[in-house]
Amino acid sequence: MRLLTLSIASLLVCAAAPQTDPALERAHKLAEKGMHELHAYAYLDQLVNGVGPRSAGSKGADKAVSWGLAKMKEIGLANVHEIPCMVHTWERGAAEKLTLKSNGKSTPLSCCALGNSIATAPNGLTAEVIEVRSDEELAALGVKAKGKIIFFNRPMNPALSNTFDAYGGAVGQRVNGAAAAARLGAVGVLVRSMTMAHDNVPHTGSMNYEKGVTQIPAAAVSLVAADRLSKTIKDNPQAMVTLKMHCRTLPDRPSASVAGEIPGTEAGRDIVVLGAHLDSWDITPGAHDDGAGVVQCLEAARLIKSLGWKPKRTMRFIFFMNEENGGEGAKAVFESMKGAGETVYAALESDSGGFAPRAFGASLDAEGVEALGPYMPALKLFGIERIDAKGRGGADIGPLAALGAKLFGLVPESQAYFDVHHSRKDTLASVNPRELQMGAHAMTMLSVLLANE
Amino acid sequence: MRLLTLSIASLLVCAAAPQTDPALERAHKLAEKGMHELHAYAYLDQLVNGVGPRSAGSKGADKAVSWGLAKMKEIGLANVHEIPCMVHTWERGAAEKLTLKSNGKSTPLSCCALGNSIATAPNGLTAEVIEVRSDEELAALGVKAKGKIIFFNRPMNPALSNTFDAYGGAVGQRVNGAAAAARLGAVGVLVRSMTMAHDNVPHTGSMNYEKGVTQIPAAAVSLVAADRLSKTIKDNPQAMVTLKMHCRTLPDRPSASVAGEIPGTEAGRDIVVLGAHLDSWDITPGAHDDGAGVVQCLEAARLIKSLGWKPKRTMRFIFFMNEENGGEGAKAVFESMKGAGETVYAALESDSGGFAPRAFGASLDAEGVEALGPYMPALKLFGIERIDAKGRGGADIGPLAALGAKLFGLVPESQAYFDVHHSRKDTLASVNPRELQMGAHAMTMLSVLLANE
Repeated sequence: MRLLTLSIASLLVCAAAPQTDPALERAHKLAEKGMHELHAYAYLDQLVNGVGPRSAGSKGADKAVSWGLAKMKEIGLANVHEIPCMVHTWERGAAEKLTLKSNGKSTPLSCCALGNSIATAPNGLTAEVIEVRSDEELAALGVKAKGKIIFFNRPMNPALSNTFDAYGGAVGQRVNGAAAAARLGAVGVLVRSMTMAHDNVPHTGSMNYEKGVTQIPAAAVSLVAADRLSKTIKDNPQAMVTLKMHCRTLPDRPSASVAGEIPGTEAGRDIVVLGAHLDSWDITPGAHDDGAGVVQCLEAARLIKSLGWKPKRTMRFIFFMNEENGGEGAKAVFESMKGAGETVYAALESDSGGFAPRAFGASLDAEGVEALGPYMPALKLFGIERIDAKGRGGADIGPLAALGAKLFGLVPESQAYFDVHHSRKDTLASVNPRELQMGAHAMTMLSVLLANE
Repeated sequence: MRLLTLSIASLLVCAAAPQTDPALERAHKLAEKGMHELHAYAYLDQLVNGVGPRSAGSKGADKAVSWGLAKMKEIGLANVHEIPCMVHTWERGAAEKLTLKSNGKSTPLSCCALGNSIATAPNGLTAEVIEVRSDEELAALGVKAKGKIIFFNRPMNPALSNTFDAYGGAVGQRVNGAAAAARLGAVGVLVRSMTMAHDNVPHTGSMNYEKGVTQIPAAAVSLVAADRLSKTIKDNPQAMVTLKMHCRTLPDRPSASVAGEIPGTEAGRDIVVLGAHLDSWDITPGAHDDGAGVVQCLEAARLIKSLGWKPKRTMRFIFFMNEENGGEGAKAVFESMKGAGETVYAALESDSGGFAPRAFGASLDAEGVEALGPYMPALKLFGIERIDAKGRGGADIGPLAALGAKLFGLVPESQAYFDVHHSRKDTLASVNPRELQMGAHAMTMLSVLLANE
């Protein structure tokens, strides 16, 4: 691209000429301030590199709570406080080790324990491996599974253009694979990482045991490791792996979500909530998941305050604790708001990465979305092309529907999200400052419009 | 993000159930094949890392032409041939050097010559520096500019959500700054790089001299260097810089664009063109600009052939030569098609990066865009949210409008494009394989639909 032929349409959209649409006028002011300052990225640096990994119950999580409180106070939010909860606490311990032995040759494979897994015996778990790609293939194994490690190797379907759909179609084996395999007498499970990035980095995530079913160790392997393992056991079904993991679940620990607010000018109106989750998995700086969401909410608060906007409804900013492995923060927030007799007009969540915004998903029907039509010119300035009816809000704000909330979830571009998700690659460097900021503006704009309805 | 609540809407979109819309059926077949193979990225690796930088008239450009011919033949395109042209040829020579001297302290500043600039004297150009941010500020200098180096430091406007608009508002100083400054007696120009990435990497690009106006050396400086220079000369207007550049313009050389085609099943119908430019600037691997566009056209051809689709209109795939610094390839292509009496039904170009597709710009009015409504479900599968009326096609296909062509330009997400544009950062690693492939599919789908109209 050498020179530019500006279309007349784009020039008209961009001109700083006075706007007759007051929402669009606000949007231009927001863009003018926010895109020059790019403060969301500076906040993200603090959270991702200053605080670092912050899995629920860890010292990192405590540090994140303190950071969240301090930032909300620094911005000048009112009623900054913790919402306490007890959190499920799981520790990885020393690094995992997976070794493949075939025909006298020993090869290390890149892996990581899945969240909630038990450890192996100290000298490791050694067994033959059987690969399956579906529940049906597992069921067909029957007694053959006994004493084996089951290798769940179903890839995310790359043909799906929304990678969250591809994730949804593959993540069941990670969450429920161990219980299903244990029912057949398997002694451990390995799961292909939930990613389409073909490299040697493993991606963790939660798994669940079932009551009454033997608990067996569960680990994720990188795609390079998965492909090597698959090929090796095809060539030599007698190949063995040895898995060593040192993880453990500890008694629940006290932790907290963090909240602060901009009081509405019209008392008695119900609340507008902006939320994201403060915790991350232990092996990742959690830049996209969900540092991005946290700093977008924080930046929304900062921008509204510093632009001197006065919403009619109270706006509450909430950093939820332990979305990744229990959701206790969301439950405690819901209970405390319910206990206080609060009602929620709308709740917005950002937990799909800090990539360029494309849409909001909304818990509305087509008619409800149509009623938001007048907001679209202002939202389009920040990349929002549409509001999708019957979309998802997000895991943390979900319960607030019971307090009356319309739910909105920010939908950024999804192609690269699972390249980094739940892995050590989810770093500040994987985030573009402008894309992150545009998401903060989309959240700011929609929430302010809703707060003034 | 932990687990996924699939919306009913997204499940319906993704279901592999039979489609009643034949375009959407085709789109699903395209996705199924293309997203598994991700072949555009493999092609890009060959062009970017195998061929490398390929500025017009260079050995790299010759290599790129050979590569393009070989790939088109490998795919089995018909009538693979060169379209010769003479190209403006400019060489950088040894690396540039810029040194800032203030209060006895000497600091190197990161810079690169702008395309077409003359060299400095072998021992360099040394002068004081005056900063300006607009044509008005330059004009106001009057005789003060004499003997000085003019430093054009107007940033791209970050408040504009489309970065191409921000580029359009700043690039004039790079293209025309030297001539304007020379008219006032300035001896050289430095220009703030056309980027919003605040780092120490300079971005090159074309500049033009004017007939009858003294030619003076012109270089781009990185944003870090620009800010340092700006601060230093504010503190100490007597600060001096020394610029050493060894670039030169050579006599025009013979080169060529590359074309190949899939013959239409209905002879006599006019042609559908898919195009992108093969050349890059000399200091960059040119992954997004415009390796991405080239491999998207190539991948479109491969997919159409291997899916056995038989377009009614002939589809011609063209890799244009020297978009960056002369546009002779586009002129020669136009002349040869005009000379052969060919007419063009539609022309599609990809020259805005290999990021996730969002739209097409089209040389149509609102009515013309509305008529394409039935195509949207198929295009949406690849991220196309809309077709913008009165949009741009692209520099290379522009002339084809005179042969009857409706013009279409792929519009990918633009936030990160100028972070890498015309710099050594425009590498394969800055491209996401899925986003690149989605762009190839958007080009494939729209061109096939148009070819069958």
